Amino acid sequence: MISAVDVIRTKRDGGALSDDQVRWFIDQYTRGHVADEQAAALLMAIVWRGMEPGELATWTDAMIRSGERLDLSAVGRPTVDKHSTGGVGDKISLPLVPLVAACGAAVPQLSGRGLGHTGGTLDKLESIAGLRAALSNDEVVEQLRTVGCVICAAGPALAPADRKLYAMRDVTGTVESIPLIASSIMSKKIAEGTSALVLDVKYGSGAFMREAGMARELAETMVGIGERNGVRTTAFLTSMESPLGRSAGNALEVAETLDVLDGGGPAGIVSLTLTLAAEMVALAGVDGDPATALRSGAARAKWDEMVRAQGGDPSAPLPEAEHMRVIESPASGFVTRLDAMDVGIAAWRLGAGREQKHDAVSATAGVTWTAGVGDAVEAGQPLLVLHADDAARLDAAEPLARAAFTIGAEPVDVAPLVLDVIRS
Amino acid sequence: MISAVDVIRTKRDGGALSDDQVRWFIDQYTRGHVADEQAAALLMAIVWRGMEPGELATWTDAMIRSGERLDLSAVGRPTVDKHSTGGVGDKISLPLVPLVAACGAAVPQLSGRGLGHTGGTLDKLESIAGLRAALSNDEVVEQLRTVGCVICAAGPALAPADRKLYAMRDVTGTVESIPLIASSIMSKKIAEGTSALVLDVKYGSGAFMREAGMARELAETMVGIGERNGVRTTAFLTSMESPLGRSAGNALEVAETLDVLDGGGPAGIVSLTLTLAAEMVALAGVDGDPATALRSGAARAKWDEMVRAQGGDPSAPLPEAEHMRVIESPASGFVTRLDAMDVGIAAWRLGAGREQKHDAVSATAGVTWTAGVGDAVEAGQPLLVLHADDAARLDAAEPLARAAFTIGAEPVDVAPLVLDVIRS
Repeated sequence: MISAVDVIRTKRDGGALSDDQVRWFIDQYTRGHVADEQAAALLMAIVWRGMEPGELATWTDAMIRSGERLDLSAVGRPTVDKHSTGGVGDKISLPLVPLVAACGAAVPQLSGRGLGHTGGTLDKLESIAGLRAALSNDEVVEQLRTVGCVICAAGPALAPADRKLYAMRDVTGTVESIPLIASSIMSKKIAEGTSALVLDVKYGSGAFMREAGMARELAETMVGIGERNGVRTTAFLTSMESPLGRSAGNALEVAETLDVLDGGGPAGIVSLTLTLAAEMVALAGVDGDPATALRSGAARAKWDEMVRAQGGDPSAPLPEAEHMRVIESPASGFVTRLDAMDVGIAAWRLGAGREQKHDAVSATAGVTWTAGVGDAVEAGQPLLVLHADDAARLDAAEPLARAAFTIGAEPVDVAPLVLDVIRS
Repeated sequence: MISAVDVIRTKRDGGALSDDQVRWFIDQYTRGHVADEQAAALLMAIVWRGMEPGELATWTDAMIRSGERLDLSAVGRPTVDKHSTGGVGDKISLPLVPLVAACGAAVPQLSGRGLGHTGGTLDKLESIAGLRAALSNDEVVEQLRTVGCVICAAGPALAPADRKLYAMRDVTGTVESIPLIASSIMSKKIAEGTSALVLDVKYGSGAFMREAGMARELAETMVGIGERNGVRTTAFLTSMESPLGRSAGNALEVAETLDVLDGGGPAGIVSLTLTLAAEMVALAGVDGDPATALRSGAARAKWDEMVRAQGGDPSAPLPEAEHMRVIESPASGFVTRLDAMDVGIAAWRLGAGREQKHDAVSATAGVTWTAGVGDAVEAGQPLLVLHADDAARLDAAEPLARAAFTIGAEPVDVAPLVLDVIRS
């Protein structure tokens, strides 16, 4: 006879939960037969004691089984998806998804909205007029079959145990736990039905994990969960000391995405997109070459196709903010620091992010900048532009935006964006 | 601005909670403004991280302030109480309370009922026909003023935060924490209004704390809480490897109490009662001598007075069980082991204890025995008597009762009952 108190005590005393204990607890909690306070006590005991790899794989599998798992067998091509742990200016999914689809794989990107200083992929995509992010499972499968990619909202039927646990963790101080973070991400990604997965695990100022060591542990943990649950998984460990590209904001990042898909865009974004695409193509086992698909315009054509399939008009102009303020460089020299967290919070204050889960976000607000770490700048040249629908927000964001940049006399070495790759 | 999540995070990360955080959390939780799952997460974090002495004193004080604190100033004499962490056959409060009152102090023993293998003082006292354990605060004060002692139930207005937290701990695997145990006991005892307190902290087979080291830590922690909250507190560290005296059961222990108060009774019980009484008398600063008060019959007279004041008839015969079974010694030799837990569970199975909080207990069920550790026994002599209202229970209890005794060929040294005394 399994009881909630016995499960809690086992973990409290540092033991590994048995498969039966894990499956029983998740099932009973999802059904409301285990009380919230019991789940909270178990979560805190997991923060304390951690979980062993096999135990965590079962925990993740139990969360997947708490709901439905998409069946993508009708899609007719290999499936592969990508997940980022979240960063400032991280619009990589937007060019990456159609690029990988253009290479012959199907990409079922079921995504979420942003909270706090990092934007959500859906928030960005929804700055395209008319675009629908809420698709039925049938629509997802059909679009994957015909177009080859989709970026839409993960419905409530996927991993409901995770949804319930996540809400609980938020109010009980149990968010910061590598096994809990890893199982939350992986349960949702595996439930969406993908056969392979590339993870972009961020570390640094603008990331959830400040330390590379913690990010590496999270990456290794997620790769282990994928392996044990039959999903080929690779994790990249990438820096989020500085924001990605030259923009943070919803429509602003879509505009940058179009630059990339049209063959331009900041070199860092292009390079990371191609790196992740190459891994996804390899995991999916398809023949397409990402560099060619980008250069040839095939990726851009796939983007247009995807946007149209979801009700958007890819040629419609993107919305622009009513108010803008240009901030000039205070000195001549080199950018020695550009802080991701400062930029992220500035964009959030401008209206690009939300404070509470159900807040609305502005499509047009955000920050763009003209130089990254290592670049030379002249005193008085435009360095940043703040974008907002409400002029008062410009004042709130300006000090942080200014503080994000440090200009020095000497050039600095630019650290590589990708620190490491973790394969199973 | 204090938030529940910040309080939980502070403790999760190993910090000490500020006075404001502690008082806010306990107050808001008692009022139902902090959710059960948040309290559960904090409790598990306390199990993990512990509490510092000052933090714990404030936590205890906040629990006291969650309800009313009895005002015993009208009693007119120094107040002192005693608490035992619970053991098998531990009827010490019954003779001790009237004995100390006979020495001139007032003893406000607000007590609880038993759960599991250890009996509760109230359960024992209620085997006296007609005795009322539910008294109003005014009745308590009046009886302390006129009689000098009372043994009754602690009402729901005392430390309601503890009541709520205790129920939560029971279902969330957070019972086993020294600061949580210590603050729970001390909040109730301090709320009853006593000026001084003697604690009997048990260790060994039949105790909640198996290890003497853990019991010592609990004792020191409680003495520290008493000190910081203005209650003079002494803790005795005593063995619960073997049951106390020669009986475990409700009316059976009242009968043994009367033996002690009439000048007889097992030497261990008499000795521990006098030891605790001497400390209580010293803490209260009254002149009476416990040995004299016991020998003279003053303690017995005080018992009769207390029982009458609460509606009981001290001369009425005690109830006796319908079914008894004598178990004979299997061998000649010396008792080398008499296990408190085995005896406690045997008495529980016979009907003396409860499984669930609202179960009824039998007044008459229990175990009596004729020899303790170190005593010589003859094969075939009566060693144990099982008492039950229901004959089927005799069979359930007999194997455990037999297993409680080990008879060896050689005499053994008897370990002292009192291991140590901890004063502030």
